[in-house]
Amino acid sequence: MSRFLHSRYQNMEPYTPGEQPQERKYIKLNTNESPYAPSPRVLEAINRTEAEQLRLYSDPEARALVNAIAHRYGVDRSQVMVGNGSDEILAFCYMAFGERGFRYPQISYGFYPVFAETFGVDGQAVALKEDFTIDIDDYKNAGRTVLIANPNAPTGICLSRSQVEEIVASNPDDVVIVDEAYVDFGGESSVGLLSKYDNLVVVQTFSKSRNLAGARLGFALTSPELAEDLNKMKFSFNPYNVNRLSIVAGAAAMEDEAYFQECTGRIRKTREKTAQFLSDLGFTVLPSSANFLFVKPGTMGGTEYFTRLREEGILVRHWSDPRIVDFVRVTIGSEEEMERFCMVTKILVEG
Amino acid sequence: MSRFLHSRYQNMEPYTPGEQPQERKYIKLNTNESPYAPSPRVLEAINRTEAEQLRLYSDPEARALVNAIAHRYGVDRSQVMVGNGSDEILAFCYMAFGERGFRYPQISYGFYPVFAETFGVDGQAVALKEDFTIDIDDYKNAGRTVLIANPNAPTGICLSRSQVEEIVASNPDDVVIVDEAYVDFGGESSVGLLSKYDNLVVVQTFSKSRNLAGARLGFALTSPELAEDLNKMKFSFNPYNVNRLSIVAGAAAMEDEAYFQECTGRIRKTREKTAQFLSDLGFTVLPSSANFLFVKPGTMGGTEYFTRLREEGILVRHWSDPRIVDFVRVTIGSEEEMERFCMVTKILVEG
Repeated sequence: MSRFLHSRYQNMEPYTPGEQPQERKYIKLNTNESPYAPSPRVLEAINRTEAEQLRLYSDPEARALVNAIAHRYGVDRSQVMVGNGSDEILAFCYMAFGERGFRYPQISYGFYPVFAETFGVDGQAVALKEDFTIDIDDYKNAGRTVLIANPNAPTGICLSRSQVEEIVASNPDDVVIVDEAYVDFGGESSVGLLSKYDNLVVVQTFSKSRNLAGARLGFALTSPELAEDLNKMKFSFNPYNVNRLSIVAGAAAMEDEAYFQECTGRIRKTREKTAQFLSDLGFTVLPSSANFLFVKPGTMGGTEYFTRLREEGILVRHWSDPRIVDFVRVTIGSEEEMERFCMVTKILVEG
Repeated sequence: MSRFLHSRYQNMEPYTPGEQPQERKYIKLNTNESPYAPSPRVLEAINRTEAEQLRLYSDPEARALVNAIAHRYGVDRSQVMVGNGSDEILAFCYMAFGERGFRYPQISYGFYPVFAETFGVDGQAVALKEDFTIDIDDYKNAGRTVLIANPNAPTGICLSRSQVEEIVASNPDDVVIVDEAYVDFGGESSVGLLSKYDNLVVVQTFSKSRNLAGARLGFALTSPELAEDLNKMKFSFNPYNVNRLSIVAGAAAMEDEAYFQECTGRIRKTREKTAQFLSDLGFTVLPSSANFLFVKPGTMGGTEYFTRLREEGILVRHWSDPRIVDFVRVTIGSEEEMERFCMVTKILVEG
């Protein structure tokens, strides 16, 4: 730290992303990436002609991408806003809608409290229930912006659309943000509520179900007025926030519905198979609607399980927070990766 | 605007980027892009294998890119910080170093006062001298963070390194940020001062001299402590801020010194030829060290000149600010584009 840093940030703890080892020797089940390559249409779209155009700025309105998203979700283009990853979209939400504070679950995406510190927003973290579910009553009439990941991370547990609707309806004077990063793996999206409510922001990402984590693409689906607010943040921070190749890649991915269905379907199938295997081995397995499982071994602690998997060349995610220290989060990889993961786990557990 | 927007932002005016017409029928001399394609090494680096890897997150430390930059500028890797365009780097500077306020020239990059509003920083704009040069005395002992574009935009006029050093040396308790977006076209970089001063941040970009505006890449060269502060902002806002393809593209561009020299040399040559032509036609032409010229026609107003060029299919940049309303900023395009620009201008002027 330098002696020049703003006092507000001197004690701030930044977000710690999952390990991204550059040597690539691990089976990476730690950052919820897709095991499958991007759509063949994406690979075609990133060609030499597009690369030559990199001399020119990207379209600050990212029209090709916005149009593809609007078409896929059946909303107007004015209801779509795109960002350099959904993290950027969330950051803009904190800036735009943070005046009365935020409320979010205590066990959720670890970035939520970091954003609160970054933007000087009063962040209120509410405990989950004993069974790791969200008590929707905690978010009704909140008197502040509500932010919920649905499905939640790292639990994988989802709320139904009608539960989300209860929260949205009870907060007519505040924004409700539903972070649907993992919704395409079995959750129930709240996009359908947009026609009824003007205070809802649905945030999604290309990083998981669209196989494009490295392209950095996220988007918000919301009311035209809230999209305008978010775009005001973008144009006051980084107007050309999405690069040229990610715009064409994202549009191509969004248009390939069949590949999207195939990839997400395979992951759901592998998830169910893996969940059954771990249950049979005596693990606690939370019911997941995401592309990961949050699991607790029956016979060893989470730290030990994490460490021993790592020794065997398998990376999963583990947190030291005492409420979840006995759990690890396992991304659903390819069929082969998960077979290896199951085999290694069986040996570790049975000795 | 929604009724939920933070009161701080309700009257904020976002930045207005130069037009990016998507139909591409214009000769685009309005946003200071390079007329030349990215380096052949960049075009090779963006291949199918890299595109397939887009399923994985980018390296949050962007090591391949940081290493290439550190090597090119002869600094330690700990002195390099990369961003999603230099706009993002500047935004992080406002967040990290804005506590005592900022001071910058009144005629300069139009984003500086917008950033001040975005981050609630007290921004102080100081007038240029009559001849559009910066009076360095205005920035000595500033008692706040100093931000200067060198060469300045849209004037193109540069300060010498020793002038910058006077400013840096006189502000030991404040950060001095030198925005060198255009330095590679004839300015004198302040990178050499980094070994003497711990309060200097030099910001550069791949958008102009590296032909990669559409890749969104900027970087800061600074002290390890200030780089750490800027990285703290990044990891509290958007850890994966640079996408995978831009990391490999940027590294490849940085390693192709010969192509860089060739492109910037051609632009300087075309700039001098164009400047001479316009002077001979009776234009006022400010002395430019950038990839653009700031010029005032002798026989018509700036608004008329801008409008008539546009009718002829040539886009340049024009501002309504009364101090510069008679000027337009003309990006240096390819040899052929500038011949066309000169021919059209001659006809417009001579009728």
